[in-house]
Amino acid sequence: MTAKSQTEWTADPSELLRVGEGFRLADVDADSAPGYDGDKKDGAADLEAGAAELDELQERLFAQSRVIDDSPAVLLILQAMDSAGKGGIVRHVIGATDPQGAHLKAFKAPTEEERAHDFLWRIEKEVPPPGYIGVFDRSHYEDVLIGRVRELAPPDEIERRYDAINDFEARLVERGIRIIKVMLHISPEEQKARLMERLERPDKHWKYNPGDVDERLRWPQYMDAYQTVFERTSTDYAPWHVVPANAKWYARVAVQALLLQALEDIDPQWPAADFDVEAEKQRLAAS
Amino acid sequence: MTAKSQTEWTADPSELLRVGEGFRLADVDADSAPGYDGDKKDGAADLEAGAAELDELQERLFAQSRVIDDSPAVLLILQAMDSAGKGGIVRHVIGATDPQGAHLKAFKAPTEEERAHDFLWRIEKEVPPPGYIGVFDRSHYEDVLIGRVRELAPPDEIERRYDAINDFEARLVERGIRIIKVMLHISPEEQKARLMERLERPDKHWKYNPGDVDERLRWPQYMDAYQTVFERTSTDYAPWHVVPANAKWYARVAVQALLLQALEDIDPQWPAADFDVEAEKQRLAAS
Repeated sequence: MTAKSQTEWTADPSELLRVGEGFRLADVDADSAPGYDGDKKDGAADLEAGAAELDELQERLFAQSRVIDDSPAVLLILQAMDSAGKGGIVRHVIGATDPQGAHLKAFKAPTEEERAHDFLWRIEKEVPPPGYIGVFDRSHYEDVLIGRVRELAPPDEIERRYDAINDFEARLVERGIRIIKVMLHISPEEQKARLMERLERPDKHWKYNPGDVDERLRWPQYMDAYQTVFERTSTDYAPWHVVPANAKWYARVAVQALLLQALEDIDPQWPAADFDVEAEKQRLAAS
Repeated sequence: MTAKSQTEWTADPSELLRVGEGFRLADVDADSAPGYDGDKKDGAADLEAGAAELDELQERLFAQSRVIDDSPAVLLILQAMDSAGKGGIVRHVIGATDPQGAHLKAFKAPTEEERAHDFLWRIEKEVPPPGYIGVFDRSHYEDVLIGRVRELAPPDEIERRYDAINDFEARLVERGIRIIKVMLHISPEEQKARLMERLERPDKHWKYNPGDVDERLRWPQYMDAYQTVFERTSTDYAPWHVVPANAKWYARVAVQALLLQALEDIDPQWPAADFDVEAEKQRLAAS
């Protein structure tokens, strides 16, 4: 199944990009556009058509939750190396829907208070309520990515976290939260070009952080840490998707497709009135 | 001064719509489009041009706050009778900017925990951080509107709140938060038509609440309560604006104009790099 409004897919992106048995990150070509038989211009057209569909589905999801208890929600988790385009996804994919139905959270390095709690403590507080599309720009996966690469916790604590994450996500799914986990995958060469652009443009300097190069120098260790994340936490109920992201247009249309598929699958309906419509019409007319 | 990108204003909307000495809500024509020499089509074109300007100003505001301590923020406070179009403002005016730079909060009837605290307790927690455009869909003003009309608190407590609000807002302004207070003003006839539409369309039933008619029956008391709010809380540092809202297109372009004027006045600049740009270029090139 592919999303109704996007036309150029030749295969189901949620199948094609999903991390399954035997997946190897090293085999993914960051320049590719798997399953999509179109170019940048087609991608822009599909993104626009998809935005209208996403907007309606999101409104239905929200409407349903206003009337029906324990309605579903959607949680998009975005992980990536710096400059891979997480912000662009939020802006161009989520930004096309009503901001009142989105719940965004960008996780930074934990504060002292957050570090004093379990790593999932600050995450739990940002889980989207029923009816919302939640977006995590970075997430609990930082605690097994930079946490592992930078040895911010002892090895047995890192080990414990993979299972804790799976338990946590299973609980969310049980509560009716549909989880879409995405790694935007760029090549180190593409990252170098994007960071260089930030250095060359004064209006982009604020996006550059000297620490970005320090992390970049650990690229192979990060790829290993991602590979382990995929092996340990790509579950049936909350699978990972790796989205080639050297072409921004592809990454955007692909993540939109994953969201559309999840929402089409939920198939939210306008809820029936929980009041007497005809009686209310008369009361209103008389007012 | 009018916003650079909007072309059809014949007078400064922030002056024209501001509640000053001797203002009387009863004299405002909800059907009018003060200061705007254009029609719905011009309004849509101005809204689109303004969206591009707002988007850039918002990004500059955000960028500045990432580098400079105690940077400014903007807070848009929206109040109105039901169906006046608060949601449409959020969707069409705020929705045109990067969702990562907006901080939205819709205040509902207070919870038991919230009622156990001072009425400003839950409000303080939602004040936008530096660099953000915050939007309150309803606000602390409910506590002197429905609070007064429905006698949810004793008269002396209601009296106390006007001064408490002025003190609170003065503190925010001192912290560098630019406050834009807007009442969207519709006529009772327009409200009746909009509520009737919600009853006639099954996809709008979820937006209808039988309580809306109960509040509607107290229209004159609400207008009195708004008049008192304006008299007591339209200050130099945080003035009210009453925006005629029977024409949705006018209300949207006018609120966008108020936001643009506030941001142009802040005039946020791309912050200078706080690192050695040339040294970083070399370090990145070598990585």
